[in-house]
Amino acid sequence: MKSKSSTIRFLYAASDTSADALYLSGVFVPDPFLAIITHKKSYAVVSQLEYNRVAKQSKFDEVMLLETIREKAAENLRISIGEVGAGELMVYFAQRFVAKKIEVPSDFPAVYYAILFKAGYRIRIVEGAFFPKRLKKTDTEAWMIRQGNAASAAGIRAAEAVLRAATIDGDRIIYEGSALTSKRLRSIIDQACLKKGAIASHTIAAGGRQACDPHETGRGLLRANELIIIDVFPRVQKTGYHGDMTRTFLKGRATPAQRALVKAVLASQRAAMETVRAGIKGGAVHAAAESAFEKQGFVSERRNKDFVGFVHSTGHGLGLEVHEAPRVSKGAPKLKAGHVITIEPGLYYPEIGACRIEDVVRVTKDGYEKLSNLHYRWEIR
Amino acid sequence: MKSKSSTIRFLYAASDTSADALYLSGVFVPDPFLAIITHKKSYAVVSQLEYNRVAKQSKFDEVMLLETIREKAAENLRISIGEVGAGELMVYFAQRFVAKKIEVPSDFPAVYYAILFKAGYRIRIVEGAFFPKRLKKTDTEAWMIRQGNAASAAGIRAAEAVLRAATIDGDRIIYEGSALTSKRLRSIIDQACLKKGAIASHTIAAGGRQACDPHETGRGLLRANELIIIDVFPRVQKTGYHGDMTRTFLKGRATPAQRALVKAVLASQRAAMETVRAGIKGGAVHAAAESAFEKQGFVSERRNKDFVGFVHSTGHGLGLEVHEAPRVSKGAPKLKAGHVITIEPGLYYPEIGACRIEDVVRVTKDGYEKLSNLHYRWEIR
Repeated sequence: MKSKSSTIRFLYAASDTSADALYLSGVFVPDPFLAIITHKKSYAVVSQLEYNRVAKQSKFDEVMLLETIREKAAENLRISIGEVGAGELMVYFAQRFVAKKIEVPSDFPAVYYAILFKAGYRIRIVEGAFFPKRLKKTDTEAWMIRQGNAASAAGIRAAEAVLRAATIDGDRIIYEGSALTSKRLRSIIDQACLKKGAIASHTIAAGGRQACDPHETGRGLLRANELIIIDVFPRVQKTGYHGDMTRTFLKGRATPAQRALVKAVLASQRAAMETVRAGIKGGAVHAAAESAFEKQGFVSERRNKDFVGFVHSTGHGLGLEVHEAPRVSKGAPKLKAGHVITIEPGLYYPEIGACRIEDVVRVTKDGYEKLSNLHYRWEIR
Repeated sequence: MKSKSSTIRFLYAASDTSADALYLSGVFVPDPFLAIITHKKSYAVVSQLEYNRVAKQSKFDEVMLLETIREKAAENLRISIGEVGAGELMVYFAQRFVAKKIEVPSDFPAVYYAILFKAGYRIRIVEGAFFPKRLKKTDTEAWMIRQGNAASAAGIRAAEAVLRAATIDGDRIIYEGSALTSKRLRSIIDQACLKKGAIASHTIAAGGRQACDPHETGRGLLRANELIIIDVFPRVQKTGYHGDMTRTFLKGRATPAQRALVKAVLASQRAAMETVRAGIKGGAVHAAAESAFEKQGFVSERRNKDFVGFVHSTGHGLGLEVHEAPRVSKGAPKLKAGHVITIEPGLYYPEIGACRIEDVVRVTKDGYEKLSNLHYRWEIR
């Protein structure tokens, strides 16, 4: 037991923005704070501003008052209180817990790493997941992600309702008397998410050639007879878990090329999804999506500075972060039961337009459980 | 010039979440990417997924394709492509730009710091502002912060309208047929912000004893005759700049103690604000707020684990982050023209309730320019 007790872990982050800090603490804190994990207990050090709230609401075994700890650290390290920053607090705790080794996450602030290093500690930077359990979602977490996807679906449905209610004038989409823009549609989507208690940021409502840049959120007018990608990944305010869903719509009349594109993406998504089960490699899921495209004659290639075809990976982990482990891309390792991933193949050709369709599944022993739910009708006359 | 050219700076962060990365790039990117700054130029390395968008929309002098750079790095470092992570890319660029010294921000990921350190580079971790210019807001930035505060004010006005329209039943506040909760009021505030194009997170709508924890967002019923703190700090979607304003309301009839509390906070805010000009210390602004409270007999003290009175600093910098430099607290250094800060004294006593009033100013040579605008009426019958 002695060797075990001599390793301690530090986390220094704000749980409003760091998924690891929120996972550990279970409470939103806007500014970075120090968390310490020994083999026995977890501790937080927070200022008087946060103390009562964190003591009452967090999952930490013990919450310590920053003002008191700074005094103790100054005394122990024989420095003045003014010299005690977060790095000095870490050195103090390393001494107090007689740490032989310190573990920190890969995004640990360099400034504190350097202080601990200079103080002579052996530091292991944990690459990959700092809390491997974070990848395996419990039933409760799966339910929270479903809530996120319910918000995504509400946003997408709001967009669909706008497109259904709209009329066409030339290549313009007229909604409530004026030509529909990406900005206006995005605002309607985000409002619908917020009504479900989730905050959507950087929602994509991009049409035509714009949508061929997968992270372009869309600018200016949306056009009739063009494919419009709607990608909505809100964060549920109460829990911090995300939804992430994409549908592609077209207002007007699709060309045969557009229809073939959407059909191929639907088929690719199905093909990829059908491979999902515990033990399959993320790379194999991606390969299934790719091979479905190839079978239907959709080539992915580089044209000078542009990439066309299937230009991104098939999916990514989803949870407290929109993009988190595991990967569902070329060379990605085995999926495990409990992993929650998106399956979102897409095709991008400037001459046709772009289509992406995205759902979320939880990996099970024999297959998957779908955590998102919305129809796939896309052509809106 | 030679010595100058031998220092390069690295930034590795997602501009969706890192204010430094957004300040440098001017474009939202959801995943961390490498930015390199030499004394001549700024560069970004992004994947094909982002390439076109970042090349077109960002402020970088040169945008490089990750896939190509990884190949070059593998060749130069004589390793396989699979071994080229972001740390190896940094080593490659350090060689390519013949860097003698590398500068990184204090929140630079430890994992890459360790790789550069191991590769033998002298690394300076810049403590404090990585881009000192970020603290001095231009007229355009001040205007963007005004936009943020217009959203804050819209949110607060929406809350006020609810309280005005509401009736009182015992200690309950009845709005549109049901008792008003923090959650419902927060949702109305956030919707109002979103209509102004700004995303509000963790909006505070907390009453009574709850509000005595300054970061408690509020749970359950809001009560009549209790002070209710409304603190709204949304981020404008288009620009990334924030607003940050607080008002305190009371629905019903205030007691003399509550009136004295609010009066003292208003006086303290005025006193602190009147000291603001270029050259004054942030610590002196804070002292003015403190001394106004003392003059009016409001004592700040510790009662066991609770702190009562004026329990936090007077303000903080505001911009691409809600909390950024400079500080407006005990011992804080001189303010400079262009700094944008909040002035938000507050008083917190479990037996009376809590009041905080917050506005935003830009420091000028002779005083300040107010960037927020909303009345201070607070008692709603």
